[in-house]
Amino acid sequence: MSYNEEMYALGAKRSVIREIFEYSKKRAAEIGAQNVFDFSLGNPSVEPPAAISDTVMALVQKEGIHGYTSAQGDPTVRARIADHIRARHGVPITPDLIYMTCGAAASLAITLRALLHKGEECVVFAPFFTEYRVFVENAGGTLTVCAPLEKTFQVDVADLAKKLTPNTKAVILNSPNNPSGVVYSTDTVRGICDVLRQKSAEFGHPIYLIADEPYRELVYGEVEVPYLMKEYAHTVVCYSYSKSLSLPGERIGYIAVCPDMPDANDLYLAICGAGRSLGYVCAPALFQHLIAAHVDTTVDISHYRENRDLLLQALTSYGYECVRPDGAFYLFVKALESDANAFCERARAHELLLVPCDDFGVTGYVRIAYCVDRSRIERALPAFRALADEYRR
Amino acid sequence: MSYNEEMYALGAKRSVIREIFEYSKKRAAEIGAQNVFDFSLGNPSVEPPAAISDTVMALVQKEGIHGYTSAQGDPTVRARIADHIRARHGVPITPDLIYMTCGAAASLAITLRALLHKGEECVVFAPFFTEYRVFVENAGGTLTVCAPLEKTFQVDVADLAKKLTPNTKAVILNSPNNPSGVVYSTDTVRGICDVLRQKSAEFGHPIYLIADEPYRELVYGEVEVPYLMKEYAHTVVCYSYSKSLSLPGERIGYIAVCPDMPDANDLYLAICGAGRSLGYVCAPALFQHLIAAHVDTTVDISHYRENRDLLLQALTSYGYECVRPDGAFYLFVKALESDANAFCERARAHELLLVPCDDFGVTGYVRIAYCVDRSRIERALPAFRALADEYRR
Repeated sequence: MSYNEEMYALGAKRSVIREIFEYSKKRAAEIGAQNVFDFSLGNPSVEPPAAISDTVMALVQKEGIHGYTSAQGDPTVRARIADHIRARHGVPITPDLIYMTCGAAASLAITLRALLHKGEECVVFAPFFTEYRVFVENAGGTLTVCAPLEKTFQVDVADLAKKLTPNTKAVILNSPNNPSGVVYSTDTVRGICDVLRQKSAEFGHPIYLIADEPYRELVYGEVEVPYLMKEYAHTVVCYSYSKSLSLPGERIGYIAVCPDMPDANDLYLAICGAGRSLGYVCAPALFQHLIAAHVDTTVDISHYRENRDLLLQALTSYGYECVRPDGAFYLFVKALESDANAFCERARAHELLLVPCDDFGVTGYVRIAYCVDRSRIERALPAFRALADEYRR
Repeated sequence: MSYNEEMYALGAKRSVIREIFEYSKKRAAEIGAQNVFDFSLGNPSVEPPAAISDTVMALVQKEGIHGYTSAQGDPTVRARIADHIRARHGVPITPDLIYMTCGAAASLAITLRALLHKGEECVVFAPFFTEYRVFVENAGGTLTVCAPLEKTFQVDVADLAKKLTPNTKAVILNSPNNPSGVVYSTDTVRGICDVLRQKSAEFGHPIYLIADEPYRELVYGEVEVPYLMKEYAHTVVCYSYSKSLSLPGERIGYIAVCPDMPDANDLYLAICGAGRSLGYVCAPALFQHLIAAHVDTTVDISHYRENRDLLLQALTSYGYECVRPDGAFYLFVKALESDANAFCERARAHELLLVPCDDFGVTGYVRIAYCVDRSRIERALPAFRALADEYRR
């Protein structure tokens, strides 16, 4: 092979989710989309708020709207986001610590490239989004995985303390969590931050906390999602509007550097450099301007909550063991045999497309993305029941 | 510094163009935008065709329009682009060799990451777009610069033959050229391809030709821009709609792999892997769908041609030595002293913002981006004349 083998392997393998996504389209063409129960992709089923298309239609009439913005993003857009963070979370961030990105994946890839030296470690908490490994490795780093607590799937803080080494540069925390739907409690978060502070002092250099927050707005009930900048100075927030505004294909989000960090402005420059290095010129301009008008807007999440309640109740009644999700739009379910891949194969025979979670760092579990039409869940329930019955036979 | 020093350096230094861009905004706030003659940035002054906003307004009403597409891009969009390439250039490309990207910078960063191994060389032709160095280095490679022919600024094919080594993986050709405006002639292109074939045979592995083509549609008069896929099998085209449709802020373009390449499908997979690795999930969805409706649309380039004619005639009459640009929207002008940076400083005293081309690999020249309102050129002409007079005194 005359080109890069690692890139070929990444492209040839694909993420397990993308692989199912492609299978699903093929299968839908064969038997009709209504007969394929695809729960694989986190593609929001709730349309963006109506105000979004009104704003797009107004913006597109404006002269120069499609021009380049500054590499770090339009200053007015960044000012509105800084205002929002100040008002909502009480963190005195300034626009010059906000860097607009092409969504959460770009936010993470850029932040990791800005932080890591070759060979440094990044710690993640299982279950974790599979692409973390890809972005950490692209930045020259290695991934260290912490085990979750049983049943609750909260972080095992004692395990974290053992996994941190003088070579650890960063920790990624994703809450509400993909794929478990778990929201890490304030106690858990404070426990993590205490350990990070203690180990940073012990090692003589900061360990950065990367808050991967695309699901922040998708929380059901009175559950609080602690804002990490208020808990830990060396925090970098990677945010995306993909889920909060149902715009996943438009690739729009931001990186925010905690103003309490002693060298926040310098890290921000490293983020600018990393964005440049990875080929990002600016985040899509039209959608940057759209965000400025909608920093306080969120999709109606009642649809997701009702989906969650329906699925959780039904699957539990069929005998599935589910982790109760307080946020995101994923249900984390124990497979009915130890091998989640084999279980997903058997589910596929019922046209149920589920994601085995081995690549997320937890064996024996599957992810069900319930960001789908209610009718898909209703049509799929007999298949879930039949699958459970099959295992009981 | 606890984070990555190279990324900090890239962010702290900024590209010279971005630096002037930021200065320009600051200066405009001080003395009024109409008094700053900013010719620094390739931000198209011609608005997109009216049909573009009509299409956006129609698309934004469609359900699911903002959803994820396949990582490589929506299949319908890729089919339309393949049709366009087949019809226009006679190359029998298929949609599965087209990969949608966030613009030309992303196309290049991804292609280089897919091709290069650590320490391999990429050859560029001076003058060359400064960010090539950044993308090559991000891919672990090193940059080799070929000198241009004097006066014409065509490629010195003999110099290329000398610069290719067994360690050369790729060559980037940018025509119409940024910053010179030169279109490489068919003779030049065939000379390059002959040398590449000869050296590939000699070294026993292919040298890839990367065609960086954001300016393909911006050509004035009866000048032909050879289509490299027809000349050389190991060609990868990096295209962008930033200039052809005046959508630079929207970040939309594609990579196309030449179907004549023996392992085209495998290289395509490496490109998919590289995109994933750099944090690209999919190209912006709304603008992908927009492109499908407008693959044959181009902005009205008569404005640029008239700007070129006006500037070229006026500056030549003031005594400036200009390279005649047949394409793009840049005028490449010999500085009136040997140090182009010093010249640009003196131009700045006349509120003329020009780009010194040292970073483009040619000393003693400046770039004038004439993708601006006619009135800016008209207001600036006395300043250009005064600057020339100053050097005559």
